[in-house]
Amino acid sequence: MQFSSTTVAVWDVFEVSASGPAAGNPYLDVTVEATFSLNNRLVRVWGFYDGEGIYRVRFCPDTEGEWRFRIHSSAPELDGLEGGFTATPAREGVRGPVRVRNQFHFAYADGTPYLPFGTTCYAWTHQEPALQEQTLETLAAGPFNKIRMGIFPKDYIYNTNEPLHDVFERDAAGSHDMDRPNFECFRHFDRQVARLGDMGIEADIILFHPYDRWGYCTMSEEQDFRYLRYVVARLSAYRNVWWSLANEYDFLLDTKPLSRWDRFFHIIEEGDPLRHLRSIHNGDVEKNYDHRQPWVTHVCIQNWDVKKTQDWRNAYGKPVVNDEPEYEGDIPKLWGNIDAHTLVDRYWQTLCRGGYIGHGETYMHPEDELWWSKGGVLRGEAPARIAFARRIFEDGVTNGFEPLRALSDSFHLRISGVGDGDVRIIYFSEHQPAEFAEGLPETDGDWEIDLIDVWNMTVTPLEKAELPKVHPQRVTGGATVSNRPDAAFGIRLPGKPYQAVRVRARRAQ
Amino acid sequence: MQFSSTTVAVWDVFEVSASGPAAGNPYLDVTVEATFSLNNRLVRVWGFYDGEGIYRVRFCPDTEGEWRFRIHSSAPELDGLEGGFTATPAREGVRGPVRVRNQFHFAYADGTPYLPFGTTCYAWTHQEPALQEQTLETLAAGPFNKIRMGIFPKDYIYNTNEPLHDVFERDAAGSHDMDRPNFECFRHFDRQVARLGDMGIEADIILFHPYDRWGYCTMSEEQDFRYLRYVVARLSAYRNVWWSLANEYDFLLDTKPLSRWDRFFHIIEEGDPLRHLRSIHNGDVEKNYDHRQPWVTHVCIQNWDVKKTQDWRNAYGKPVVNDEPEYEGDIPKLWGNIDAHTLVDRYWQTLCRGGYIGHGETYMHPEDELWWSKGGVLRGEAPARIAFARRIFEDGVTNGFEPLRALSDSFHLRISGVGDGDVRIIYFSEHQPAEFAEGLPETDGDWEIDLIDVWNMTVTPLEKAELPKVHPQRVTGGATVSNRPDAAFGIRLPGKPYQAVRVRARRAQ
Repeated sequence: MQFSSTTVAVWDVFEVSASGPAAGNPYLDVTVEATFSLNNRLVRVWGFYDGEGIYRVRFCPDTEGEWRFRIHSSAPELDGLEGGFTATPAREGVRGPVRVRNQFHFAYADGTPYLPFGTTCYAWTHQEPALQEQTLETLAAGPFNKIRMGIFPKDYIYNTNEPLHDVFERDAAGSHDMDRPNFECFRHFDRQVARLGDMGIEADIILFHPYDRWGYCTMSEEQDFRYLRYVVARLSAYRNVWWSLANEYDFLLDTKPLSRWDRFFHIIEEGDPLRHLRSIHNGDVEKNYDHRQPWVTHVCIQNWDVKKTQDWRNAYGKPVVNDEPEYEGDIPKLWGNIDAHTLVDRYWQTLCRGGYIGHGETYMHPEDELWWSKGGVLRGEAPARIAFARRIFEDGVTNGFEPLRALSDSFHLRISGVGDGDVRIIYFSEHQPAEFAEGLPETDGDWEIDLIDVWNMTVTPLEKAELPKVHPQRVTGGATVSNRPDAAFGIRLPGKPYQAVRVRARRAQ
Repeated sequence: MQFSSTTVAVWDVFEVSASGPAAGNPYLDVTVEATFSLNNRLVRVWGFYDGEGIYRVRFCPDTEGEWRFRIHSSAPELDGLEGGFTATPAREGVRGPVRVRNQFHFAYADGTPYLPFGTTCYAWTHQEPALQEQTLETLAAGPFNKIRMGIFPKDYIYNTNEPLHDVFERDAAGSHDMDRPNFECFRHFDRQVARLGDMGIEADIILFHPYDRWGYCTMSEEQDFRYLRYVVARLSAYRNVWWSLANEYDFLLDTKPLSRWDRFFHIIEEGDPLRHLRSIHNGDVEKNYDHRQPWVTHVCIQNWDVKKTQDWRNAYGKPVVNDEPEYEGDIPKLWGNIDAHTLVDRYWQTLCRGGYIGHGETYMHPEDELWWSKGGVLRGEAPARIAFARRIFEDGVTNGFEPLRALSDSFHLRISGVGDGDVRIIYFSEHQPAEFAEGLPETDGDWEIDLIDVWNMTVTPLEKAELPKVHPQRVTGGATVSNRPDAAFGIRLPGKPYQAVRVRARRAQ
């Protein structure tokens, strides 16, 4: 029996490994799990076989103290093994897993707000090692704190290369044996998830997807369940894991009926003591999974029509992450060829409606190195603007930005605005009023007002101004209303589109 | 009895006037109508009182020949008057009223396609005479062939001046007497409708609207019906009339229930032998009138969400004219402050989905001379691009541009494309593929291909190119499809947004 260490910081991974049976097919035949305990508290954790007779159990302590464990296994060599370790305070900057907070928002376990600014590289861990290193370098320099990535490789246009590692072993005829994991592949995947964790990037792990020529998407129900338990056993202890059950689950309903997707969620809940975030991503914009199900933690959605963000919040009552609002790029596929201005506009429209939104990039490349699936380098103009947006929203957040009531009726939803505490951000998108007041504070005070140019990334102070001119008006019901906005003051704007305004209580100098 | 002339060209106005009772209130008390006949054909036409004991009947001949008429009236002086005139061939360039053709499109009575490119000046006929002349000059130089205009003046922000003429007489206390028309006001309105007709501009006449401080929108049902019959009697003979029952009828439901709006349509049908186009305009985007009603000729709609154009075609089965897709401007009102790029984009998105779209302009002005209601001059950047779009579509039209089937599923509706005969136009909007094929002709041939930059107004020849790269792909149901588009060839594009492509059979040199 070996321990990774006898002291482990809270939110880091404690791993115990031990030798057991190597004969037959331990992946099928040997059960292993452990009970971790801290005084009277018991936490059950699945172990897994890692090849060559080695079994492992991984555990992430959420509490400081003297943890003990005991292994339970169908293999006598493993059953009853015991040990312990000391969980020390979390390392500087390590905040634990991200969870839902305040219904529509996220925070790390330590309470720090987490605003997802994710990107997508579906098959980056299946590329040549040098390209994977380049991807990590790009991520380190970029604005993203989450990445959507698949366990399985991808078979699709611009994705015709064989993966670095098969996920399951091939038999002599070259067919995959879905009962024999390629442990090297999984070890590599674990390692890359851990490296992302070290960089502060959440790994939004896609468990199934339809873009397959190897047979991964047509495994039997039993093989699906076993694979899922295996992945959960290997990866649950990494604090930065999110479970994305599928990319485009609805394109897989021919092989995996809806009941199986429900069961996938249950299996994850059974095996994941850290309760990582769980969601599932649609292909057809009219085939969202029912994100109201109690086992879904947040809404993961693919939809270009970001003005519906509040509809999705209302429909599901959970945080909305629109992970595929179409990608910046120039490929013929219509989900992958919007211009950077449009993507940046969709960011601001979503963020200013109380939702979150993800990035992808699909510029044609002579060697088919498109960021969206292979990683490599970013070529687009959106990432710099995404970094700017992230700074603005992270700087202002306390509890999570919620839609401003003054802009919430169907008429006012033509623009978008959110508030959090004494901070408001209104985004005008294609609208270019020269003066405005709706959504501004109802009380006068020492407000700091800034004009934000979301493309040019400038923040320019604005002065309070008179309320715009109004005229009394007859309304339905026969009354005459003054039309005066509820706001205490107005603002003058430059009369150009794609501007936002931030109003906040003046901060101490 | 006086005739305007004893010979009148087809589609021009024949008018007969005669003296009758001036005492009491002839508007309430005297009925007058006429039967026009051409051999055995009889056409019934309403007459009207025009003040000072003068009664008039107007008639627009749709057929050449010797027309006779006989007047029927409750006034003995008028009843039984007879006469006739010769209807000569239509004057050069006069094509008759616009009607629906090919379900979703329009044509003049002579069969020439009419593509509505309208604008909006709600209250232009109520401004000072010099401003009205300026409006007509602007229209003469501009791209518009239809104008939305109200009979009643407008009370609203930037519209606080009194009208040039009251529509009804005031009593000694200054209140309007809705039983006593101001004939001068109606004569002026008739004259401006006729002048628009001379310019080839359709007058989309708005009969009711909610923006009122004079009492016009709270007339009794009887007064509404009488007013409507009066307007129909005065104006039906002008070939360029369209009937728009309301601007924003749903904001008037407190005084005019839905059944009254239905009846308004019936009254128009009863009194309008030319069967001018009839529709009604909503305020709230979720409160469209039921345009499937048989008395509605086309869908008039206010909606910024132009990607729904095909939904409206499908819902109502009639031509769609989105007359208020928000206006170019900079006022605080969100329906009046989009930038010109966005409006031009909405034009192309609508036209390339088989619909039609209208213009409005609302730039703030020191004297409150905003084009959208007062007319005057245009200040925006959209009209030049609208002229360009009009040339492209008028140049290509034969039967009306219909959505391309290859782009009609929900996925492909992300872009828009239409075809008419051998002409196809595909508009990419925010999409910027560097290569593309979907929607292009399925057969090879001598195609002329042009890249159209809808903002910069350039048309640049393109060459046929290879089809984009594809990769076979597993699809739902387990089959593998080639992904090859149905098109016979591809095109290379500049990889920037807001481009269109036109493909047509090469024209003879």
